[in-house]
Amino acid sequence: MTGTEVFNIGLCGFGTVGQGVWQHLAAHRAGLEARLGVRLAVTRVAVRDRRKARDVAIPARLLTEDPLSIATDPAIPIVCELIGGTTLAREVTLAALRAGKVVVSANKALICDHGPEIIRTAARHGGHFFFEASVAGGIPIIKALREGLVANRFPRIYGILNGTCNYILTRMQEENAPYAQVLAEAKRLGYAEADESLDVDGWDTAHKASVLAWLAHGAWVRSDQMIVEGISRLTPEDFRNAALLGYGIKLLAVITRDFARNELCVRVHPTLLPRGNVVANVHGVFNAVSVTGDVVGTTFYSGRGAGRDATASAVIADLADAASLLKYGKGAHLLGEVTAPPSSGCRLAPAEHIRSRYYLRLAVADRPGVLARIASVMARHHVSIASVIQNPATEPGLASLVLTTHESNERATAATLRDLRRLAVVRAEPVLLRLGDFDS
Amino acid sequence: MTGTEVFNIGLCGFGTVGQGVWQHLAAHRAGLEARLGVRLAVTRVAVRDRRKARDVAIPARLLTEDPLSIATDPAIPIVCELIGGTTLAREVTLAALRAGKVVVSANKALICDHGPEIIRTAARHGGHFFFEASVAGGIPIIKALREGLVANRFPRIYGILNGTCNYILTRMQEENAPYAQVLAEAKRLGYAEADESLDVDGWDTAHKASVLAWLAHGAWVRSDQMIVEGISRLTPEDFRNAALLGYGIKLLAVITRDFARNELCVRVHPTLLPRGNVVANVHGVFNAVSVTGDVVGTTFYSGRGAGRDATASAVIADLADAASLLKYGKGAHLLGEVTAPPSSGCRLAPAEHIRSRYYLRLAVADRPGVLARIASVMARHHVSIASVIQNPATEPGLASLVLTTHESNERATAATLRDLRRLAVVRAEPVLLRLGDFDS
Repeated sequence: MTGTEVFNIGLCGFGTVGQGVWQHLAAHRAGLEARLGVRLAVTRVAVRDRRKARDVAIPARLLTEDPLSIATDPAIPIVCELIGGTTLAREVTLAALRAGKVVVSANKALICDHGPEIIRTAARHGGHFFFEASVAGGIPIIKALREGLVANRFPRIYGILNGTCNYILTRMQEENAPYAQVLAEAKRLGYAEADESLDVDGWDTAHKASVLAWLAHGAWVRSDQMIVEGISRLTPEDFRNAALLGYGIKLLAVITRDFARNELCVRVHPTLLPRGNVVANVHGVFNAVSVTGDVVGTTFYSGRGAGRDATASAVIADLADAASLLKYGKGAHLLGEVTAPPSSGCRLAPAEHIRSRYYLRLAVADRPGVLARIASVMARHHVSIASVIQNPATEPGLASLVLTTHESNERATAATLRDLRRLAVVRAEPVLLRLGDFDS
Repeated sequence: MTGTEVFNIGLCGFGTVGQGVWQHLAAHRAGLEARLGVRLAVTRVAVRDRRKARDVAIPARLLTEDPLSIATDPAIPIVCELIGGTTLAREVTLAALRAGKVVVSANKALICDHGPEIIRTAARHGGHFFFEASVAGGIPIIKALREGLVANRFPRIYGILNGTCNYILTRMQEENAPYAQVLAEAKRLGYAEADESLDVDGWDTAHKASVLAWLAHGAWVRSDQMIVEGISRLTPEDFRNAALLGYGIKLLAVITRDFARNELCVRVHPTLLPRGNVVANVHGVFNAVSVTGDVVGTTFYSGRGAGRDATASAVIADLADAASLLKYGKGAHLLGEVTAPPSSGCRLAPAEHIRSRYYLRLAVADRPGVLARIASVMARHHVSIASVIQNPATEPGLASLVLTTHESNERATAATLRDLRRLAVVRAEPVLLRLGDFDS
């Protein structure tokens, strides 16, 4: 018997996740080697500043400040891109793929913005691109979609993909606390970035939705092609109203495919979910994904969506798959070019085909006839009212009017909003939320 | 370009699941071929009676009554064993593995009883054994454990693995209905077998627990080495008491590993779960698994645990992996002999190391001093009482006494039960349930 085969890994980026990967690979070395039959060895690590003091001890000889030198190092078949951003990360990823390497990435923004180029480059040069850690952290949702549920087509996938937003929404719901206050505390506790906009405005969720939509439908949808709305306009009153109606509020990515029309819709927005819905009961920094397949029915997954350890768990799973691929052969389900189903020419659904019930909160003048004015605007666009809640005035002369609608569509509600804004009795930008009346 | 490579599949067993596999393979042929780059073709089907009328139309020339002829047919590299039972199914499985084939199985009883022999045979003859459909139906939990969470060791895995039991318990809880009545209705609706004992006595769950324990810990635990208790002694009163205490009741498989002591515990029993626990909120025929990894934290999976379509989804995923394996190479994570971690010589935990809180329901004589007698028996075994509920008598002279304990262990509670049975004031076999105070 010869010794165990060793696969060298280059880590590009040594922040929180990179250090987690380093430490857990070291701690689980024996177990991984026994299971995989190969050894995973991190032999080079690219950092921004070699001289910086670090919590994790790492031999100085492994360090470099040039990640591109790792991407092109012939001694390194597996490159782990944990730099973040879409500039240097893209260069490193493409250089490694052009060298026929396996790239393991947690970079959803990169995939969303440059996915087609990455997959094309991998296919052309015999490289491979693994990205389990890019969506829903430690939950193996990528593997579930592309391998475990390969027998299925997916009429609906939805879920909570951003732990920061779910943390904020959970605290707003539980404590009846205003958004700004909870956000400030989340920043203090390290649950939100100093610049929170990528998370709270929905863009991070949109990047992840793009990845899932490609895996499930073979079509690339950029975030500028989606409805993307964030959570910053939600108020404690919205949570109270939702509770009265039997709902909670979650920021969801929703990916629906209408196979009859061959239309795909990818959207990100705060959603009222029935209290009994399992996703509505996933709280704090946890992520959750509900996947409805045409064969399996609805399956559900949850776990930590971010953080050092959960992300490292997913990165290491990809490193293990990468080592298997290199040692044993090239499984079809591991090949970038065939990991997604054919898109079958599906189109993005037009606004009038994107249907749901809606929740509309309006700050209106507190005088007679206001509801009639509003109702007539809605009727003009065939948006039918299902319920009305009028809450006590927050300021003198103002009332808060909350309407829910029967099923309508994005075109009709956009037209309704446009006309409502023109009414003198409507005193602030309306807040429109979608209801997610998903049975599971 | 040559034509698409075709892999022949032999279906052994053409009952509900076999017919589902046949139909969904046909319906998804084009999509699967596009994703996998190969064609899956069912070329032979073994049935018990060729002349029987079937709902699913299948060409008569494919049929045989001899599954062993499929197992040894050199034109068939993939054998799908859906016969059930452990006699003929074992022969077919071993014959196919000895011929170096890939066997896809949904047969948890077979794996539980003959797992070591099957895995050994596969390793010796270059065969492969896939069994995603054997546990939790359409939920890709096997793939999650052995690939997606490969970076982890697993201190705790627990879940609902039997849809029949969960259906019965859900209806008992929601309708305050007695066991016998709900069971009879479940049989009428086709949710329970004519002979229900495999399900309701916990053996089916135990078989599946054995599979999960092997995957997570590399150790084979037979069902006769586990605590296995079923649901038939539960009463509506138990659900009312549990609700008073803030709990629901689920039949769980619980697999815990104490890495410090190197001990493993696998058990199956009705469990009181806190109402907020996500597994406690999985109802009806659905299955759910909570997996705690030392890196990823707790992840959670749910979906349909049985039935034609969910099981077919899992079988087809295995067939796809089998085809990838045959076409592209032999990935380490697909090889039977290294799919589980080394057991590291772990032992089964002795009864005194299996700890939890307990729920004890006693039918006692309704007279003074009874509680004192019972409390003194418990004190003798150092089982400490946490709460007492005394319910109105169900028959004259009898009272129902419900105690919960602080944390104790299986040895102390077994000794307590033994002594309680000897008390004249205890008028029926005590009912002992475990509390699952899992934080997630």
